Amino acid sequence: MRKFKGNVTTPKGFSAAGVMAGIRKKLKKDIALVYSETPCVAGATFTTNKVKAAPVVWDMEILKNGKPKHAVVLNSGIANACMGKQGVEDNYEMASAAALALACHPEQVFTASTGVIGQPMPMDVIVPGIEDAARRLGNTERDGQEAAEAIMTTDTISKTVACQFTAEDDIEVTLGGMSKGSGMIHPNMATMLSVVTTDVNISEELLQEAVSTVVADTFNMISVDRDTSTNDTFIVLANGLAGNEKITKKNKVYEDFVLALFIVCKDLAMKMAGDGEGATKLLEVKVRHARTHEDAVKIAKAVISSNLVKAAFYGSDANWGRVLCAMGYSGGEFDPDKVDIYLQDGDDRYLLVKNGMAIDYSEKKATELLSKPMMTFRINCNDGYEKATAWGCDLTYDYVKINGDYRS
Amino acid sequence: MRKFKGNVTTPKGFSAAGVMAGIRKKLKKDIALVYSETPCVAGATFTTNKVKAAPVVWDMEILKNGKPKHAVVLNSGIANACMGKQGVEDNYEMASAAALALACHPEQVFTASTGVIGQPMPMDVIVPGIEDAARRLGNTERDGQEAAEAIMTTDTISKTVACQFTAEDDIEVTLGGMSKGSGMIHPNMATMLSVVTTDVNISEELLQEAVSTVVADTFNMISVDRDTSTNDTFIVLANGLAGNEKITKKNKVYEDFVLALFIVCKDLAMKMAGDGEGATKLLEVKVRHARTHEDAVKIAKAVISSNLVKAAFYGSDANWGRVLCAMGYSGGEFDPDKVDIYLQDGDDRYLLVKNGMAIDYSEKKATELLSKPMMTFRINCNDGYEKATAWGCDLTYDYVKINGDYRS
Repeated sequence: MRKFKGNVTTPKGFSAAGVMAGIRKKLKKDIALVYSETPCVAGATFTTNKVKAAPVVWDMEILKNGKPKHAVVLNSGIANACMGKQGVEDNYEMASAAALALACHPEQVFTASTGVIGQPMPMDVIVPGIEDAARRLGNTERDGQEAAEAIMTTDTISKTVACQFTAEDDIEVTLGGMSKGSGMIHPNMATMLSVVTTDVNISEELLQEAVSTVVADTFNMISVDRDTSTNDTFIVLANGLAGNEKITKKNKVYEDFVLALFIVCKDLAMKMAGDGEGATKLLEVKVRHARTHEDAVKIAKAVISSNLVKAAFYGSDANWGRVLCAMGYSGGEFDPDKVDIYLQDGDDRYLLVKNGMAIDYSEKKATELLSKPMMTFRINCNDGYEKATAWGCDLTYDYVKINGDYRS
Repeated sequence: MRKFKGNVTTPKGFSAAGVMAGIRKKLKKDIALVYSETPCVAGATFTTNKVKAAPVVWDMEILKNGKPKHAVVLNSGIANACMGKQGVEDNYEMASAAALALACHPEQVFTASTGVIGQPMPMDVIVPGIEDAARRLGNTERDGQEAAEAIMTTDTISKTVACQFTAEDDIEVTLGGMSKGSGMIHPNMATMLSVVTTDVNISEELLQEAVSTVVADTFNMISVDRDTSTNDTFIVLANGLAGNEKITKKNKVYEDFVLALFIVCKDLAMKMAGDGEGATKLLEVKVRHARTHEDAVKIAKAVISSNLVKAAFYGSDANWGRVLCAMGYSGGEFDPDKVDIYLQDGDDRYLLVKNGMAIDYSEKKATELLSKPMMTFRINCNDGYEKATAWGCDLTYDYVKINGDYRS
């Protein structure tokens, strides 16, 4: 199992491109295309928001049509959400333009959009942009990198990663991913889009199961229950070119694949959390020894999402009372009198709270630790054997600035 | 029914004081006392946070002891939360000091604290402070005003109001209230403390019912489900001196009393929302024609709590997509294709969204409206007959500043 620098073009048989179509005034790549000539099975998860953008509705439909998939076409700048019939038609045109250029059927092409809600898609530039992207498809690392850049909105860094493992002694299976989005406050703040490609040979059913399992512990842990944007989309395409025996049951290779997918998604999720809008620091919340997994998840998410915890983290203030307070309203069960809270930096742990009360720690030392670019609150409930980990960032002036005039 | 300037000393038989005991370094009043020599019945609601401060635990206990109540003693600066046995003892000493000074029993005295969590109460200054407050008790408007000032923390204005109605043709019933707290983001951000005094004559059972009814539509609508601080406390004392026939059933006088209590609590709730930490503007969200009251409440709370909506409101940006997005993850049922959204300024309504899609409104006009010190998003679900209203404020740089170094 090896994590390394790479992206959606790293697995065998995948090509990609990112181009500047001119969707917004800004000079920035805004159309991305990911393609496999070899037919793929697909697994995906989408926003649970009642208000779904046109591409999400489309993807949910074609995911279950039984046809092999070939591509994902993505754009940044306009979300194609809340546009009624026009949005549905524009989205179909987007899939069709890609299908035509790639010589496949529109229903074999996933779409994804991110940007402003409620504005029409400028199809006069999007269609030529897609044609341009199809012409430029390539399988170098740079091609994948350009695709990752094309889906960025308020992101300050592009987010890509790859992972490889060995199946059946000598077969290399590769996964490569890209994503965009800010874990700031919640992903409802900014759409999360992510595409992972892999050359693993797997049944569509098990791929979907792997996706659902992994998403719960990664992308959903930089989120808060119910808080998802209109466009959130995560798609995995698997073309089978690694040549492993097709995974049709939960054997060792399946487990290795799930682990590799977890590594890829966790890496992308942490990058999103750390690149939160206006964020300066990455915050990790590890809840340990909780009564149930569900309790651990509720507690971790409540703490990571608390504006008060985030603002205190920005100020490098060890305001553990706010951590305990967020735990208290999380809805997760725990005994306040048993809780220990540590600041954890790698393997070093610095105890702040023992049995629900502050010990005589040094504020200076705590502030020093909290000033680091990444810090972990380790919360020990001392009340069971379950755990969960969530990721987020600090709340800063710049967050307000970015979101006060995002559309301007 | 008449709302007017007044406070906890406005109803007959109540006196109050606010003094500077020196709990924090800041030169600021920090102990408040509210007193009625005439025995009172009491109604109250408290935080639902699992982590409860010592005064909350005390109040919940004595609320049900059947003894008439005489006073509420409050302090700002230290929350007396997460202090274990020491906190319980300090709280009892606080109630005892007040009881001794007022010649009643500790179990007839409610306590309330607000401030930093996890630090010990400086009893060496608190006890003399309570004695000082008891000596200074007075029933002028100024005395009530000083009590209101003594409970402020990050509040920028003191919050008081009074209301009067006529019962049985010629009996004036008066209510007076004070509160502290910031509706910014959620009340979990900052404790909400509120005391309402009234000279109405009412059974304790019906007083409690009135309190629970009114709180649901007022204080809880500047909040989000589950998000309450460790200390949130709302106490109503009723001493019966108005001389009305005791309310023991839900007659006309009871209904008038509930309305008066609603007026007082709504006024205080809106003042808290508008005085959100760092807030510059008051935001009201009216959800109308929802399927059920519960759906309306969920939708209103999700929109009022959305950081994205709040930040856009700060920037006077009519980003209705974020409103629709927050509705979508609220958990409330509605049909996105039926939703109309207006900006409402008094009786004037300006339509932004019709049937879930933007109409051709003027961004300039919308920005003008959103620049006002108070604005209402009116959301019409066109899907039923239920409604709810919530209050909040914009998210600003100053919010981050205040909460980044609150303890410093």
